[in-house]
Formats: sequence, C-alpha cells, structure tokens
Amino acid sequence: MGNVWGKNLQVSIFGESHGPGIGAVLGGFPAGIKLDLEYLEFEMGRRAPGQDDFSTPRSEKDEFEVLSGLFNGATTGAPLTVLIRNRNTKSGDYAKVKDMPRPSHADYAAEIKYKGFQDYRGGGHFSGRLTAPLVWAGAAAKQVLQSRGIMVGSHIQSIGGIEEPGFDLMKIEEGALDGLRKKRFPVLDEEKAEEMKAIVKKAKAEGDSVGGIVECVILGLPAGLGSPFFDSVESLLAHMLFSIPAVKGVEFGAGFQLAKMRGSEANDQYGMTEANGIEEIRTLSNHSGGVQGGITNGMPVVFRAAFKPVPSIAVPQKTVNLRTKTNEIIEIKGRHDPCIVPRAVPVVEAVAAFAVLDLLLAEGES
Amino acid sequence: MGNVWGKNLQVSIFGESHGPGIGAVLGGFPAGIKLDLEYLEFEMGRRAPGQDDFSTPRSEKDEFEVLSGLFNGATTGAPLTVLIRNRNTKSGDYAKVKDMPRPSHADYAAEIKYKGFQDYRGGGHFSGRLTAPLVWAGAAAKQVLQSRGIMVGSHIQSIGGIEEPGFDLMKIEEGALDGLRKKRFPVLDEEKAEEMKAIVKKAKAEGDSVGGIVECVILGLPAGLGSPFFDSVESLLAHMLFSIPAVKGVEFGAGFQLAKMRGSEANDQYGMTEANGIEEIRTLSNHSGGVQGGITNGMPVVFRAAFKPVPSIAVPQKTVNLRTKTNEIIEIKGRHDPCIVPRAVPVVEAVAAFAVLDLLLAEGES
Amino acid sequence: MGNVWGKNLQVSIFGESHGPGIGAVLGGFPAGIKLDLEYLEFEMGRRAPGQDDFSTPRSEKDEFEVLSGLFNGATTGAPLTVLIRNRNTKSGDYAKVKDMPRPSHADYAAEIKYKGFQDYRGGGHFSGRLTAPLVWAGAAAKQVLQSRGIMVGSHIQSIGGIEEPGFDLMKIEEGALDGLRKKRFPVLDEEKAEEMKAIVKKAKAEGDSVGGIVECVILGLPAGLGSPFFDSVESLLAHMLFSIPAVKGVEFGAGFQLAKMRGSEANDQYGMTEANGIEEIRTLSNHSGGVQGGITNGMPVVFRAAFKPVPSIAVPQKTVNLRTKTNEIIEIKGRHDPCIVPRAVPVVEAVAAFAVLDLLLAEGES
Amino acid sequence: MGNVWGKNLQVSIFGESHGPGIGAVLGGFPAGIKLDLEYLEFEMGRRAPGQDDFSTPRSEKDEFEVLSGLFNGATTGAPLTVLIRNRNTKSGDYAKVKDMPRPSHADYAAEIKYKGFQDYRGGGHFSGRLTAPLVWAGAAAKQVLQSRGIMVGSHIQSIGGIEEPGFDLMKIEEGALDGLRKKRFPVLDEEKAEEMKAIVKKAKAEGDSVGGIVECVILGLPAGLGSPFFDSVESLLAHMLFSIPAVKGVEFGAGFQLAKMRGSEANDQYGMTEANGIEEIRTLSNHSGGVQGGITNGMPVVFRAAFKPVPSIAVPQKTVNLRTKTNEIIEIKGRHDPCIVPRAVPVVEAVAAFAVLDLLLAEGES
Repeated sequence: MGNVWGKNLQVSIFGESHGPGIGAVLGGFPAGIKLDLEYLEFEMGRRAPGQDDFSTPRSEKDEFEVLSGLFNGATTGAPLTVLIRNRNTKSGDYAKVKDMPRPSHADYAAEIKYKGFQDYRGGGHFSGRLTAPLVWAGAAAKQVLQSRGIMVGSHIQSIGGIEEPGFDLMKIEEGALDGLRKKRFPVLDEEKAEEMKAIVKKAKAEGDSVGGIVECVILGLPAGLGSPFFDSVESLLAHMLFSIPAVKGVEFGAGFQLAKMRGSEANDQYGMTEANGIEEIRTLSNHSGGVQGGITNGMPVVFRAAFKPVPSIAVPQKTVNLRTKTNEIIEIKGRHDPCIVPRAVPVVEAVAAFAVLDLLLAEGES
Repeated sequence: MGNVWGKNLQVSIFGESHGPGIGAVLGGFPAGIKLDLEYLEFEMGRRAPGQDDFSTPRSEKDEFEVLSGLFNGATTGAPLTVLIRNRNTKSGDYAKVKDMPRPSHADYAAEIKYKGFQDYRGGGHFSGRLTAPLVWAGAAAKQVLQSRGIMVGSHIQSIGGIEEPGFDLMKIEEGALDGLRKKRFPVLDEEKAEEMKAIVKKAKAEGDSVGGIVECVILGLPAGLGSPFFDSVESLLAHMLFSIPAVKGVEFGAGFQLAKMRGSEANDQYGMTEANGIEEIRTLSNHSGGVQGGITNGMPVVFRAAFKPVPSIAVPQKTVNLRTKTNEIIEIKGRHDPCIVPRAVPVVEAVAAFAVLDLLLAEGES
Repeated sequence: MGNVWGKNLQVSIFGESHGPGIGAVLGGFPAGIKLDLEYLEFEMGRRAPGQDDFSTPRSEKDEFEVLSGLFNGATTGAPLTVLIRNRNTKSGDYAKVKDMPRPSHADYAAEIKYKGFQDYRGGGHFSGRLTAPLVWAGAAAKQVLQSRGIMVGSHIQSIGGIEEPGFDLMKIEEGALDGLRKKRFPVLDEEKAEEMKAIVKKAKAEGDSVGGIVECVILGLPAGLGSPFFDSVESLLAHMLFSIPAVKGVEFGAGFQLAKMRGSEANDQYGMTEANGIEEIRTLSNHSGGVQGGITNGMPVVFRAAFKPVPSIAVPQKTVNLRTKTNEIIEIKGRHDPCIVPRAVPVVEAVAAFAVLDLLLAEGES
Repeated sequence: MGNVWGKNLQVSIFGESHGPGIGAVLGGFPAGIKLDLEYLEFEMGRRAPGQDDFSTPRSEKDEFEVLSGLFNGATTGAPLTVLIRNRNTKSGDYAKVKDMPRPSHADYAAEIKYKGFQDYRGGGHFSGRLTAPLVWAGAAAKQVLQSRGIMVGSHIQSIGGIEEPGFDLMKIEEGALDGLRKKRFPVLDEEKAEEMKAIVKKAKAEGDSVGGIVECVILGLPAGLGSPFFDSVESLLAHMLFSIPAVKGVEFGAGFQLAKMRGSEANDQYGMTEANGIEEIRTLSNHSGGVQGGITNGMPVVFRAAFKPVPSIAVPQKTVNLRTKTNEIIEIKGRHDPCIVPRAVPVVEAVAAFAVLDLLLAEGES
C-alpha cells in the first residue's frame, strides 16, 4: 500500500537506497509504443547525481534493465518493468542513523511506523534515489504523449530566494521547452541562473543547503480531461507531486497569488482566436493554469512545486538518541547535494507526464 | 469515476445545484459511533449561505436526511448515506449560461467534456453547493476523530491580501480551535478581521470578489500515518483539498517559504520534552507541518489552502457564444458571495478530517 | 468499503431493508444516454416480489426517484443516483432475531463484525432487497450496451434438481433472449418449467425452500476485453456475481464439466466462418464460454451462477441465544420466497451488464 | 491495469515466459516478518515442473532473488519484491504460433487486444509460468497467517472424472493439511490417487490432457472478515482464483450442490459446542463453507476450483492462419504437462492466502 498509483495506467515502485536494486512496474501501458532507449537514458541522466556542482557530465549513470513488457523494441501491453541495480552501496556505519534520527528526514517517522524494521541505510525506501524509476516511468509516458502532440517542460523558477519570471503562458512554445530540457541547469534567464548557482555554492561551502521552486507546463492537452470532484486534474497532479520527497507546496496557474486578487483580475475571460487559419475559443489570460472546475480547458496546464532545502547538512544539529532517550548533537558527514532542485526538474516532469497519460487513457484515448 | 474517494473509508458524492438533491454515501464508516445530529447541523450551518455579510444567523439551512447506516442513534457499519434536498431552485434563464461560458467557471470545460449534456443550471454538479455533503461527511468523521483525541481546526489566514499571523505551531491548544469553530468569521486577530471584512464589503459594493487563504491544523494525530510514496499524508490531503472548487494552491508546514530557506533554518531538530510528567521526543520547530517522509511525526499537522476569488462577478466580462462563435459581453446577475473563504473553512476541515480518518482506518486503528 | 465496485464505471450501493430507503450512485456513467424509464421500471418489475407463486402481475412495485445525473431525459456524465423508498416496513418483533441468529443468514457474522450495531431488521443491509438498486444500475448499463449491439439474456437452468438444457452457444439468437426477458418464469423448455414450479410449490407447502441455477449469456461483446491477470473477464464477472446474496458457485463455459474432459474434447478449435458475406474467425465450439486467457474472444460469453435455497424457512431449526449462550429452536414466520431463482434472473443480468460496461469503458470505448 | 490486486496488501506481477524474468512486488506487506526462505523455496518447488510424471524430485528449480523489502532477515514494511530469472528460454520457432493461434490458448484474444505487439513466445505474459511469483507471494502471506494461527491447505479432489471425497469440514485438522502439503500428489485417499495417475498417464500416452478440481480449506480465520456487497469473502477469493489460468469454475461450501438442496438440508444450524473447556457458538454443518452474507462465520472456509485440461496437446487440431485467413491444422510439439492440477495446488493456496491476508489487514489486524 502506498507504492501503487494510477487507475488505467498504474505504477508500482520498489527498492531501497542500499538494497539490491530499485525499479518500477507499469501496468496498463499501451501496446505498440516503440520505446526510444536513448531518450530514456537521457532523461535518467538529467536526474542522476553529477560530479561537480552543475555543469560536468556525471561519471556514473543509472543503468537500467527492462525486465518485461518490451518485445522487438515495442511495448507489448503487458506490464513494463524496469530494474536499476544499486552500485557503490558502501553501507558504512549506518547504525548511528538508526539510533539518532536526522532532523527533517523520514528517520523518526519510519522508526515509529515500521517498528524499527525499516532499512535505514541511506534513507532506505525513502531515499530520493527512488525517484530514478519514477523518471524512467515518466520518460516512457512522455514518449506516448509526444506521439499525441503533448509536451511537458519546466524550469527552475527559484533557488534560495533568487527568482526568475515564470513562463509567459500566452506565448510559450514547444521549442523553448525543448531547449530547457537540454540544459543541465534549466532556467529561462541565464543571469538569474548565475545568481542561483552562487547561492548554492555559498550554502555548500558553509555545510548548508537551499530549497527552490520548479515550474512546469504541459502543452497540447485536449480540453475535457479530469473528473469532478475527486479526480480533478489538480487533485491528481498534486497527489503525484507531493509524493516526491521534499515537495511541500503545489500551486496551479497563479496559485497563491490568486488569494490576493479580485475576481475581475483573476478571471480568465474568453475570446475567439485565430491560429493557423482556425478560429478557436481561448482564454485571454491563464490564471487558472489551464484547469477550470478540475477539468482541462485546452490552455497550457501550468503548476509549481516548492522544494524544501535538502535536510542532510554538515552543520551540527540537535537530535535525540532513540534508545537512551537522551539529547544529542548530530553532524551529517559525506557528500550531499546542497540543492536538489536542478535534479528534481525531470522528476516533476515525470510524475506530471505519468498522471496526464493515466487521465488520457481513462478518457478512452487508448 | 471521480465522485469516489478513499481506501478503507470511501465517500461517493452526487447531485447538482438545481436537481432534486445532493448527498453522499460513506462506505466503511466504523460501526457503533453515536452520531450527534446537532453537531452535524452546526457544521452544516458553518458552510450554509448567510443572510448578511458575516454576522447574522442564516435564515435557511441545509436540512438533511440520513437514508441509511444509522440505527438507534448509532452507525451500523453499513454505508452511511445523507440526502440534502434542493429548495428554492428557480432555474430562471439558464439557457444563456449554456451558450456563453462564464469566465473561470467550469462551464466551458464541462461543455467539452460532457458534449453539451451537462446540467448547466447553477453550475450543476460543479456547484460549490456540492461541498455541503462533504461538510456532512467530514463532520461525521470528526466525531470519530474526537473520540480518539484528534481535533481539526482552522482560521482565515488572509482575504484579499490582508493577512493575519498563522498558528503558533509549538503552542496551539484545543481550546483555541474550539473557539474558532464557534466564530462566524474565524480569525485569530479580531483587528485583522475588521480589515478583511472591509475588503470584502468594498469588493461587493463594486460588483467584484476577493480570494483568500485558510490555514488548518490537526492536533493529536499519532506518528506513523501515511505510506511512501503515493499515499504520503501530503498527497492524500492535497488530493482532497484540490477537489474543493476554487482551491488553487496547497502547502504544508512552512510550505513555499521553505523554498527560500536554508537547511539549517528549515530543519526541525529533535529534543526530549517533558509534558505531564512524560518524556517525549518532539521536534523543536515544525516547519515540516507534522509530516516527514510523507508520514506523520506526532507534531501538529498544518497546511494552507489558497482560494481564488469567486468567479461570479457583476462587472462586465468578455466571453464567447459557443453556438455562434462570436465574441460577447457577459454580466452575471443575482446574489453571489463576494468572498467564499469564511464558508470554505468548514469544507477544508471536512475533507481533512475525512482523509485523516481513512488513513487511521487503513493503519488498522478500526 | 465493500459498497463500491468498478474502475471507470463505479457503483456505490446503500440502504437497509427497513430503513428510509435503498439506492445506488453510478459514477462515470457516460453522458448523453437517453434513459428509457419504462425499461428501467420493467426490469425492476422482473425482480420485484409477486403476489402469487409465479404468474400474477405484482401488486406493488419499487418506485424509484432519480436524484441526480439525469437532465432533459439524458444522462449528464455526473453521478447518476437512484433512490427507492422503503414502504410497508412493519419492523415487528425483530428483537428476537437480534438474539437468535437465523441459520445460514448473515445474522451471526454481522453480529460479530459490527459488534451488535448492525440494523438487524429484515436482514438490514444484507437483505436481498439491496439487489433492487443493482437491477436498476444494470438496466441503465444495458441501455448503453444495447446501443452498441451488446445483449445480455438468461434463463433458469435448474430449480431443486430439475434441469433444462443450457443455451446452444453456437446458435443462440437475440430474439430468443428477448423472449426470455418477457417471461415471468424464464425457461427454454416449458415442460421443464412446469416440473420446476411443482417442486417449488411442494417445498412451499412444506414450509421449505429450494435452490437453483441461472445461466446467462452476453452476445455481441467485441474480442479483446479483460486484462491479465487480475482483471480477467472471469475474475470481474465472478466478483460481481458472488456479491449477490445466495450465490455459492460460478462457472464459465463448460465450467466444472471441463474438469472431467480431455483437452481434445474441451479445446475450442478455430475455423473461418462466413456470416452475412463476411469471413470471420470463430471457434467451432464454445467450451471456453467466450473467454480465453481472461480476455473475450468474440464468441458469446456464457456463465452460470448457483443459488442456495432461501434460508428463511418455516420448519423448526436449531440456533443459539447470543446473550444467554443457550441452545434454542427457531421458527421463521412470515411470507418468504420458497425459491428466489426466478427473481434472481434480472439480478444476474444486471451485475453482468454493469461489469461488462465498466470493461468497455476501461478499454477506451467511451 | 490488470496486473495489480488488493487493497491494503497489493500485489503487482510482471514478466513473460521468454523474457528476462518474472516477478512480483508486494506493497503493504507487514513489517517485522522473518521470512523463512527455505519455506519459500519449498512452496516454489511444489509448483515447479517435475522430471517424471508425479514422484521424482524436480531437477531444476525456480531460483528467486529478493530485490527489496527484506533487511536483516525480516520484512521492512517497504515493498517486498521478488525476481525470478527465466532460464532455458529457447524461443525456437514461435513465429508459427504468432500466425496460428493454438485452440483454447490466449493467443487469438491477445492478438486482437494487443494488436500483434504481444510477446507470443511460450504464451508470453499469459504463461502459467506467471503463477511462480504468485506462489512466492502466497507463501510469504502464509507465513504471516501462520503466525496468527491461520492455515491454508488443499488436495486434488478430482482428475479426469476420478473423484475422491472432499474434506470432512467438521473434523479437518491442521496435521492433515500439513501432511498434504508434503505430498507430491496431494490426495486424501491413496487408492484414488493411483486411479488419477493412471488417467493422466493414459492421456499423456495419447498426446492428450485432462482437467481436475482442487479443494482448498482455510482454518483459523476469525469471524467477521469480508464486507457486503462487493468485498464479500466469496467475491474476493473468486476474483483471485479466476485469475489463475485454466480455472473455469469456483464454488464455496456445498457450492453447485446447494442448487439441488432444500433449505432444511442446506441450512447450517447453530449449537453451543465445547472445545478445550471453552463454550463456543458453531454451526452444526458447513454447507456455507464458512461464509454467510459474504462474511466469515468462524467455521473453516472451503472452496473448490475447476481446472480445464491443459490446452497444449499433441493431437492435430483445427486452427486458422491469421495472416492468410485460411483454415489450417496445428500439432503442438514439445513436452507439455498432461495435467496441471498437481502443480496448481500451491497456486490455489497462494492466491487464497494472499486474499485472506489482505482482508485481515483491511480489518485492522495489522
């Protein structure tokens, strides 16, 4: 329970950071999709840990094996399964972690829930590493979406308080999304990117970490997806987004800003628009983020996910020893990401792509 | 599809604004709960439309009938069903709505999805009126929670940009929540309340509307609820919150603020705390909002939901005629809430209570 | 939990025999279906209790109210809800039932499960009366199926050991099914019907009851429905069939007879067949009942459900007093069906129709 | 879709007969269960293909790897994943199978459903080989059940029409079930076993196959499991049983025999019974198979599953060529089981154990 999601397209994930491997089973994946393995590798690479801060190609990659559902290069309609073996799992001295929960990690909650039986090495099943199979699943979903003219793209909207402007939702183009996808540090404004990077470097130098925001857009979705009340597009996307470790906020369209607006500002009025010789009904603004009444309205779907700073930091912190019930000081050693946001970008896209494909299949677009 | 939610406790809602009635079926509701009908009426009253802006007791109320699951004053374990008949449904001239979608309403998306067969009178199945059975379901859930020492409470954190401070999460007490529950305009700071009310009145006078934010807290939840990845507490609560019409943003704990923080600020460190002679492990701050790794950690669970302004406004707006494909101007007549936030407070609590009870039942706390 | 079924089409049922009413909510029902209310009434009438043994038109009928999902005579796509008020619910002296469980009724199991809080009057939520909303749901589903050329029909194959031959699966025609639907006692062989009726009358005269078997066929289903392993057509149909009170056995095609056959007899070989000038691939026999590998193969889907005798009988039976823990004798008074099989026929068809429509919608045939 | 089952305990299966491997992911498996790997191997061995007809220990076994959810010998509460690599997968000339569907196999239905993209080698995802991970999952579930005093056991009730008496449900003992578990050919009456074996050998010699029936009992289940209507114990068990390839009939208690009985014979009357100095309420017969109103009543749960003969036979059969649309004759070469029933016994037990554990967890017995 908890490791399965979806209605017509269902993903089951499994694995722990330091166990034999991690992976995912995708049930209901359409038959006859020619999976582009290079594309899958590329997307996996976007999430993989890098060598230096932001730019260098990573030295190791998450090699995957397709265990089922692929035959002669195309999906079979049977469950599509991916396995990623864990390498370099020097478990070291994790006994300490077991006794002293790291602040803002899952350690303490897991100890209570699983009564001490959880695999605590490297975060176990709670590790951000589990997002690797999610990225794989999302990349496979993206290939189906692309064949239907649907594109998912995103950028880092802020890191450590440095913010760049969001997408211009009345003008966003597929080419721009494609460009972002190829960047190691996907931003719209390169100057802001330098500021963001400087913030991360400073935090890193001080043994600290920073959070940030990812903004994501889905272009080409047909109007009419989502079902009131509980399968609203926002409910389904938010459900998946909040499954990503470290996400603590999600908003659609103008989101929290809408709470400050008046109706006359916020409302997306309608107009007849001509594009390529075709007259279409479109909204004249997109504060709703492409979703009204929980259903897509044919405009770009846009949302933002807020990531908390990585909780693994070198600076000494207060904790307790769960066995001796004494107050303690913990210093988390080892190499940790000072900012997870750049690596989180493909994860956000992946869960969104997966959720959207499930919706499309539910609507009979098989 | 879309009208059912929950795993061990399942709610199915039904109805349209101008049909015979609206209601809900609750499956898996525990047997032997003595339902306090006055409490249910009180909670329904919190959501019901009022006579004047904020203070007067409302003249009409949503009378409900329990159709099943209640016997000799206690729940039977069989599905618990509530029916609320629609009254005063003068459907008037809704034919116009059918042709000219109201900006930022579900009208257009529903027209596409249901191919013109939707009941468009008063928003039909998309009407905020459908939150009445949700409040009823949540109030029933609250009675089970209260018997287990769990309390849900909330306040209006902002309206139209006027903001009051949030809960002090290290000190919040049940009595304060109980006090808020009895207020027609539940705020912590009465001076801010006056400012908020003034903003609403001004918008109303100008035929406009305003949005706002509700902050909600759940006290007394045991640690260990929620399951990674897809049944994280945040995923489940957000799923339900985004089902409420007009919610466009959800955040937990410090939420979007976390994206600006450093790990050393954001992390919730641990300490041994004495309360009533019992030594307990508690966090020394609660930026996580009581949830870590998707699982409750025994601290208050806190979250915020952002509501967009009510889209029904009197000021003229651009729209299109769906039949003639021409640009049009629409003026929405009739009495509409200039701000839905006060009435949304019990809805937020209701869906949260329902989601939390489902989790408790899933964890075997039947 | 337990009162909801389906994936893309979901039914929630509610109610007790002696409560205010019973009903069903259908989520995901396609928009734009013009519901034929007379047809729904007719199907309800097939299940309704009659006045004499088999022939007289019944004096009372289950009047229903459509609470939602229907507008201008067509379904809206929003949840379709039906309510059937309970009438003539003279609860009489049911206190005795509470203390002394009736043999082979749900009384004892319910007492344990619901800790004495169950509504025990007339079987409460376990009453066969709850099949009325199922018949309504199934009749609505049948109207969608008919518009796609799919027809569900059935006959009484046996009562009290008197058996008539089953359908000839290579020759069954829609007209025959239609004829059966109009019979109060739907059999293929009228002579056998007389024998069956005699058996029932004799049992009735002796204060006893008899069981029987219903055989059902679905014509016109496309090949390719159902998904291995757990959404096999047989799994889904059997799930629903075993939800009907009194069903204790289900078999597909030649069913239990297959266990005695050799592969060379049992296998359905293939051949090219010409029908209406079109060459089709068809099996040359249909021992598989139209399902192979859990997926429809385009042949008629056929199955049988075995009903135990009605447990309410007048003859004295041993039971215990749950409070005093003493052995007792119980005599069940009142008018009870001596054989439920004729009234069960539309129930079998209904759950089958519902399950099949859910499958069709899941396959994208919306 | 279709490869996931369960509510609080969820199994996802994957794999094809000739792909890299097959396996299962179990979500919601309780933490802290010390898995006995030898027991798992033993159960896998019961299902594994043997060397000679019935007696010899098999030369090869299904080696499995636990990919996740196991740490220091105990389950962690995170998804428990098993992988079984495929060996000896000489795909040979399967191109022929693709064109000419084997009678009563899934070949034709799969071709239609997956539009020719299915992995047709050795039955692909439809292969009986997929029951190996089910047996593993069931064996893991059995270990949890055993720790709660619940035991699942079964015997071959018939093969090719040779039938032995069923369990005596008022007297069945755990020791007897344990004895059956250790037999390669689990029957109660060894003389009947010889007759059954003779029937199988004869069929084999003639290039043919035979079907049979497995009877299964679950001892020690508490009363009160199962929920009306759609989560009745019978619905859930039948759902899983009909997922096993080749099962075409399922019955509970006296099953189809009940259709011939009178109520006075069929009803299970109650009496106070003394066992080990404790007075208990028990039924005086068990025609209901331990389930009344869809809920367990504390008596042994008993059911039977009918298996059709293995469709792979050497005798020539009619089929068609899907490309050329011509009638053809097919002779299925290679070594095939002449009777799958002995190997199916642990599969029946496995799915039953899994379904029952899911129910127990849903009832809060975590």
